[in-house]
Amino acid sequence: MQNTRLLEITSAAERLFSHQGYHATTMRQVAGAVELQAGSLYAHIAGKEAVLEAIVVRAADEFEAAIARVPTDAAPPARLRAAMRAHIRVIAANLPAAKVYFHDWQHLPPSRVAEVRARRDAYEAAWQAIIADGVASGVFAPVDVRLAARLCLSACNWIPQWYDPGGALDPDSLADAFSALVLGGLLGRDQGADGGAAAADRSIPDHSRSDTR
Amino acid sequence: MQNTRLLEITSAAERLFSHQGYHATTMRQVAGAVELQAGSLYAHIAGKEAVLEAIVVRAADEFEAAIARVPTDAAPPARLRAAMRAHIRVIAANLPAAKVYFHDWQHLPPSRVAEVRARRDAYEAAWQAIIADGVASGVFAPVDVRLAARLCLSACNWIPQWYDPGGALDPDSLADAFSALVLGGLLGRDQGADGGAAAADRSIPDHSRSDTR
Repeated sequence: MQNTRLLEITSAAERLFSHQGYHATTMRQVAGAVELQAGSLYAHIAGKEAVLEAIVVRAADEFEAAIARVPTDAAPPARLRAAMRAHIRVIAANLPAAKVYFHDWQHLPPSRVAEVRARRDAYEAAWQAIIADGVASGVFAPVDVRLAARLCLSACNWIPQWYDPGGALDPDSLADAFSALVLGGLLGRDQGADGGAAAADRSIPDHSRSDTR
Repeated sequence: MQNTRLLEITSAAERLFSHQGYHATTMRQVAGAVELQAGSLYAHIAGKEAVLEAIVVRAADEFEAAIARVPTDAAPPARLRAAMRAHIRVIAANLPAAKVYFHDWQHLPPSRVAEVRARRDAYEAAWQAIIADGVASGVFAPVDVRLAARLCLSACNWIPQWYDPGGALDPDSLADAFSALVLGGLLGRDQGADGGAAAADRSIPDHSRSDTR
């Protein structure tokens, strides 16, 4: 019961934070969204910062669990595709939570920010490792590993700003299209089994929510 | 004099909005940052929404002016590189303003949001046109034009979250590295004159501000 209530509270907070901003959201609004008196809310959670921390920690847990399931013994292109699917599945499963995680984590108190930054750095390092392995084995061009990982993650981290989960583009197809673009590049015309996913999507007219892009 | 004051006010607001969020910033804080009484501030600007609008409109103007200078008669890879440089120069020249433009424009009143969305759509369409021309001429692979443009812009729009303008990576080098990645892809090893810029950057150890990534 306690856990169900807490989940309702964090879900309501995710929607409110992502829509109107963390600072603009009051605990009274969160309470109203779950039909509790503001006073009763504090029986479940210590305060707004604690709600933010619960959202951020759960998102970090989910991204880490997802990348941990990417097989490390596969070829770098396959690992990159798997990482992209894993990452985008987590985002698409809860767009408001992803948006709060990407944009509001720095509003945590300094000690928590340091913790979350360390986890984000470790997560980004897992992406860098995939690309570095590809470069080392000669499968990938000798790219800047940090910038390449950042390009991949930046493109994904913007998804909550425009993606419509009820639209024509499912999360795996989006991930495969991004993977094909990053792997094959705009100039690449000979990707064979490694690419071509993007081409399959070209007939989809619009992937955006009209209200947020 | 009026214009100088207004510029000081918008600059202060850009820093405050980008650091602590639009909603969390009060006009009293903006006034304090430019050493004015809150009452005197309103002699220069109608209110917080008007400050946000000034920031957003100026940013939109700058992005549009930048893409308008990209030659339309060059080959698509050169146009993409030029667009990337133009876009990232605008971002790097005023990171707080870019962050406010990317993240807070939706806090404008609905009629203004509609205007800005139309301008953003037109801007994105200019990127799509470059990629579509490349696909049509066979220089680019048959990619999803919308997703490819969105990948480029998403990667750029995340730059204010991590880029250190005082660091080792200047804006044009960052733009060239992103262009090379997007054009050649991780698998591309035969870019010739079209790529290779990313490889030159691989020895740079870290491009990030330690406080914001």
